[in-house]
Amino acid sequence: MEFKVNSKVLEKLLSKIIPAVPNRTPMPILENFLTEIKGGILTVCATDLEISLKSSLNVTSSGDNLRIVIPARLLYEIVRSMDDTLITFGIDGNSKLKLTTEKGVYNISYSPANEFPDIPTVSKSKEISINGKDLKKAIDQTSFAMSKEDMRPAMTGTLLEFTTEGLRFITTDGHRLVRFIYRNIKASAEEQYILPERAISVLAKLLGETDIKIYLGKSHISFIIGEVDFSTRLIAEKYPAYGSVIPLENENILKVKRHDLLATVRRMMLFSSSNSKQVKFSIAKNGITISAEDIDLGSNALEKIVCEYDGDKMDIGFNTQYVSDVLTHVDDEEVLFKLHSPTKACIIEPGKKNDGEDLMLLLMPVRLNT
Amino acid sequence: MEFKVNSKVLEKLLSKIIPAVPNRTPMPILENFLTEIKGGILTVCATDLEISLKSSLNVTSSGDNLRIVIPARLLYEIVRSMDDTLITFGIDGNSKLKLTTEKGVYNISYSPANEFPDIPTVSKSKEISINGKDLKKAIDQTSFAMSKEDMRPAMTGTLLEFTTEGLRFITTDGHRLVRFIYRNIKASAEEQYILPERAISVLAKLLGETDIKIYLGKSHISFIIGEVDFSTRLIAEKYPAYGSVIPLENENILKVKRHDLLATVRRMMLFSSSNSKQVKFSIAKNGITISAEDIDLGSNALEKIVCEYDGDKMDIGFNTQYVSDVLTHVDDEEVLFKLHSPTKACIIEPGKKNDGEDLMLLLMPVRLNT
Repeated sequence: MEFKVNSKVLEKLLSKIIPAVPNRTPMPILENFLTEIKGGILTVCATDLEISLKSSLNVTSSGDNLRIVIPARLLYEIVRSMDDTLITFGIDGNSKLKLTTEKGVYNISYSPANEFPDIPTVSKSKEISINGKDLKKAIDQTSFAMSKEDMRPAMTGTLLEFTTEGLRFITTDGHRLVRFIYRNIKASAEEQYILPERAISVLAKLLGETDIKIYLGKSHISFIIGEVDFSTRLIAEKYPAYGSVIPLENENILKVKRHDLLATVRRMMLFSSSNSKQVKFSIAKNGITISAEDIDLGSNALEKIVCEYDGDKMDIGFNTQYVSDVLTHVDDEEVLFKLHSPTKACIIEPGKKNDGEDLMLLLMPVRLNT
Repeated sequence: MEFKVNSKVLEKLLSKIIPAVPNRTPMPILENFLTEIKGGILTVCATDLEISLKSSLNVTSSGDNLRIVIPARLLYEIVRSMDDTLITFGIDGNSKLKLTTEKGVYNISYSPANEFPDIPTVSKSKEISINGKDLKKAIDQTSFAMSKEDMRPAMTGTLLEFTTEGLRFITTDGHRLVRFIYRNIKASAEEQYILPERAISVLAKLLGETDIKIYLGKSHISFIIGEVDFSTRLIAEKYPAYGSVIPLENENILKVKRHDLLATVRRMMLFSSSNSKQVKFSIAKNGITISAEDIDLGSNALEKIVCEYDGDKMDIGFNTQYVSDVLTHVDDEEVLFKLHSPTKACIIEPGKKNDGEDLMLLLMPVRLNT
């Protein structure tokens, strides 16, 4: 049998599916595209057993009911290296896939699809609609704080929490926590879904301007993004009760220009010692004095920044990298630090909240070593 | 004492010097900038004992005859992180360099310069002038063929050969050879200078549109590029007598569109086996058939390209990567392959030579495994 498809159309489809192909795997079959033809529709799938991607397009085919696996990277690279041209795929019985174009002939081996794992299907009973840009924004503002440590698997992912208050995105690594809420996406019952890190990073790259549909299953969640069907296994763990660590009343409010503070903190990263990575904020009514020191190198730095602050004088220490991360992800000219004491969690918020959105970042201080 | 300098002016100067600071060195002193003030001029130097970079600028200084070493990367990163501002450098007796700006105060340790190695000075008796763009072009077209193997140190560098015929740039790794000649830069006597790979790669990044001066010494060569003085140790070896491998008469001329052939060869790279990396050119009067095969993967490819060719039919094999490299560096729409037989060196040249320039690439064929 044979089928025909334009090289650029196929390249676009394969480029959407290839992110699910694992780089290293003990199961070589996963390094293939599962390729099916049924009813004149070509469907290409890939999976690493955690995430899977699938997309389809119409092709002109002389046969039907094809189901084979093709080396994914080789096929993708070949198609990508071609000019805009028509490719005729020929399949005979000898496990050779023959690609013919006006330029030449290319043979690659294919295998039967029997051993390719099943792609889980997610029930369409629970459906959510969200704009791709909105979902991307929520991911961009929260994903940096996912834990890199496997000790508590739930914290290595991003929590999607449907509540009566809105849809919450939560990440935390125990040192900092980010909570981003879309107030307009309300649910009648509270439900939690934890997406693995790899799903979040692949998803962020797939998202564009188009509206997407999310289907929520017990063990898997799936996203319909244009012609692409992305699904991922959920982390089957209980997310920590993060609400209890968020202080209700931090009465001392510091207001400061975000860019100024970020530039200062980045300079402090050059001076804070590689062990403690500590930066000290000495906050007073007329301004903040920010300082860092590397005793081993004998270097230190001190800068002053104007601010608005009405509370008591306070010396508080932070991890320089964490303050920098947090400031990078606040989407406003001004940033608020809500403080209670040098040993209690600090709340960081944009000076002005966007309509329907609620971003809150929590940062644990570090003990000052003086 | 103290001196003042604008942050952006200093950043620009340091960015030119930092490439000579080694990333890893058993001599920690080399991780510093040698910093001198004399007669109101600030001079900054760095060296890895092979290459060295030096540049100066006028500063307002309250003292003179300063000579210290300052941690290079730390100073560069600090200056780079600053906005456009005036920096006051204060030096007291306690080995602390104090930088003061309108924003803050930064202390870093400095050391006396006694142990910093001397930067070799190159006699100005032999001087050559060349435009920076021309020198960059010669480097860009030849540097890829320098040998990566230390067995024959001369071949790990680029040969600059002054001859009565012009200035030649030669590189070879034994499998391919590139010869680029500027016919307008003629010398009365033949002289050879071999520049190390690191010097070539740093030089390529420093070169712009401005004219440069080259000073030729016995053990070192120096380049004056605007305000920057770049010098490098020469490789003290005899360059192989490359002239003897260049065939004088390759009577079979193949003429082909460079972009078409390059695109085909790049596709063949996906099919040529990772062991042999072999691509086969079957050349006939009406066209070339180009093919590659990976027996382990069971994949193969074959393309046809139109060409002009008048010689006998010939099957000749090349290393796919090497043909691709060579085709990438021929600066013309059309490319000529001058052939003699499947076991003799092949000469590759642009279809049309630029005025005053002469580019020749030589490629050794590989034995066909059929």
